[in-house]
Amino acid sequence: MGWDEQSRRNVLAGMGAGLVAAATPMTALAGSKRLAAPVKKLRYAVVGLGNYAVNQIMPRFKDTESCELVALVSGTPAKLEKYGAQYNIPATHHYNYQNYDKIADNPDIDAVYIILPNSMHAEYTIRAAKAGKHVMCEKPMANTAQECEAMIAACRKAKVKLMIGYRCHFEQYNLHVIEQVRSGLIGKPHVITAEHGFYAQPGQWRLDRPLSGGGSMMDIGIYSLNAARYLSGEEPVLVTATESTDRTDPRFKNVEDQIDFQLKFPSGVIANCVSSYSTGHNSFRVTGEKGWIGMEPATPYTGHQLWVRKGGKTEQVTLPPPSKNQWAGQLDHLAECVVSGKEPIVAGEEGLKDMRLIEAIYRSAREGRAIKVGA
Amino acid sequence: MGWDEQSRRNVLAGMGAGLVAAATPMTALAGSKRLAAPVKKLRYAVVGLGNYAVNQIMPRFKDTESCELVALVSGTPAKLEKYGAQYNIPATHHYNYQNYDKIADNPDIDAVYIILPNSMHAEYTIRAAKAGKHVMCEKPMANTAQECEAMIAACRKAKVKLMIGYRCHFEQYNLHVIEQVRSGLIGKPHVITAEHGFYAQPGQWRLDRPLSGGGSMMDIGIYSLNAARYLSGEEPVLVTATESTDRTDPRFKNVEDQIDFQLKFPSGVIANCVSSYSTGHNSFRVTGEKGWIGMEPATPYTGHQLWVRKGGKTEQVTLPPPSKNQWAGQLDHLAECVVSGKEPIVAGEEGLKDMRLIEAIYRSAREGRAIKVGA
Repeated sequence: MGWDEQSRRNVLAGMGAGLVAAATPMTALAGSKRLAAPVKKLRYAVVGLGNYAVNQIMPRFKDTESCELVALVSGTPAKLEKYGAQYNIPATHHYNYQNYDKIADNPDIDAVYIILPNSMHAEYTIRAAKAGKHVMCEKPMANTAQECEAMIAACRKAKVKLMIGYRCHFEQYNLHVIEQVRSGLIGKPHVITAEHGFYAQPGQWRLDRPLSGGGSMMDIGIYSLNAARYLSGEEPVLVTATESTDRTDPRFKNVEDQIDFQLKFPSGVIANCVSSYSTGHNSFRVTGEKGWIGMEPATPYTGHQLWVRKGGKTEQVTLPPPSKNQWAGQLDHLAECVVSGKEPIVAGEEGLKDMRLIEAIYRSAREGRAIKVGA
Repeated sequence: MGWDEQSRRNVLAGMGAGLVAAATPMTALAGSKRLAAPVKKLRYAVVGLGNYAVNQIMPRFKDTESCELVALVSGTPAKLEKYGAQYNIPATHHYNYQNYDKIADNPDIDAVYIILPNSMHAEYTIRAAKAGKHVMCEKPMANTAQECEAMIAACRKAKVKLMIGYRCHFEQYNLHVIEQVRSGLIGKPHVITAEHGFYAQPGQWRLDRPLSGGGSMMDIGIYSLNAARYLSGEEPVLVTATESTDRTDPRFKNVEDQIDFQLKFPSGVIANCVSSYSTGHNSFRVTGEKGWIGMEPATPYTGHQLWVRKGGKTEQVTLPPPSKNQWAGQLDHLAECVVSGKEPIVAGEEGLKDMRLIEAIYRSAREGRAIKVGA
């Protein structure tokens, strides 16, 4: 169960993850003509000042090496005032959804981080691209695969980077599990289980299909789906799903509660995945011929717990504190890609892959049949 | 997390389990004209002297209140000699597969316990019924639902009891979990996960379809299936399944390796189940709106481990040692049913239900569609 600096470096190198952000000052931010060089930090506007933005993202800029929060976008003037004061962002760098396109004229803004209801992701990504700004967009990438394709096309046309907010790809325990599975620790993998769910309180936008695009699958089941893909390191070929929603529950007028799905991968691995808006789940496990490795919780903000079972013994493994938290790693990765010109490891194409699979999962449950995907 | 004598009694009463076997001597064994009254013990012939018989069942008769091992059936004379000597069973009570029907003429034998390859279950159950003997038969009950129906009909016609060897229905941790779920400990249940698997070594009868009727599903996946049913307390209405078998592996010439399946129950509960011949699994968990209760290992011979998560805390729960082990409870239950005339809680109909579902699971995987079952 050795975890040492070398294996950690190997993981990071192998994953191309953002934790090894450039230590030298950036001399240019490629891809946007509007940006002046030299620039030392990737300067973000946060778009949408909801819970995740204000409690998780905005406080993390101070933990990054290469990022800065320089502008805010919100439909609520009081929020702009409050968080503007808190983060020393002057009124000249406050925007609302009407004058959002004016960010094009602000050379202090290099990138936007879109943390809006899912239905707004496509529009605000495309408007940002047209304004010449790089885009970090929260997951799920959009309401439909078609929207994802439009977002990718718009960013490509504008020559700006597009990255999706898959924070777990920058979290050391998740990276460690991937590395251990690839290294053969548990032998040939056969079974993945991935479970994510929480009790969704009534009255939130996530329960309103026009805003959310769907129910638990879009919001939390996507963690099970994305984990199955990064744990296997493969793209599925077959999807089956079963939905269970109590339509008399006022929370579920137009979105699903629980949708559990199975993915079959080319190597033969089967992933058994849970997605729920009525029950708490946060775990995954990869079982191979020699044992298993798993976490519970697997994808929390903090407090990951990792276990390995081999030779009839189950042991908990604790890693040293990371040099950078998952959000800082995520934010810095986009900065690194802007400098290097490389594509983010979780570019728009990653979000599109998940969205196509989500559509297949919904279709499988609706039509009562296995759906062939990929290739 | 209270476990006390009263709740234990409630569980046992509610389940009708065999742990409360008759304390008074039996005065008659109903259902067979050939049996003389009064008889104090249900006297078994064990049919098949393989690993499970000699290591798990035969040593447990001493732990029962109402059972006795009085005869042996085997095709291997050396085994009859060895175990006959070990258990003080004279040659007059040794049988082979040719003269098996002669048990009809032995008034010392009340019942048989069939521990043969699956394909032989139907034949040896029906022959026992014709000999006027009660039948305990190992699971899976047979190779097909059709065989199960014939076994039930034969035992009904002969007025002998037919019970299937579902030992977990007599195991205190499993009973405790059921009782806690029913009592509302975790709130309304939504998700069940049940995983069973082991690495099947080559060369065993279980890998030979004519003998086994199928692969991991018949042998070990049936534990996931049966657990999903007793944990939910319902019969499924929808089955989906995905199979994954490496046909280049010489173990899997004609049986499946891994077949994972989902069951949807009328209440809305979804069970996500694993069955594998390449990886080790032995766990289940029921997740409700208030938390979860689960075990790992869940269905071992000994060493059950139970956890409950409520209010953000996970605690292990240890029960006092049981008054009777699961095999003794199982063996005594048939004795109790013979005396009382009641049907076993895991009668032939229970085995038939599992077999019909196994057939639906195979069909779902084969046809790539959800299969409606029941009603």
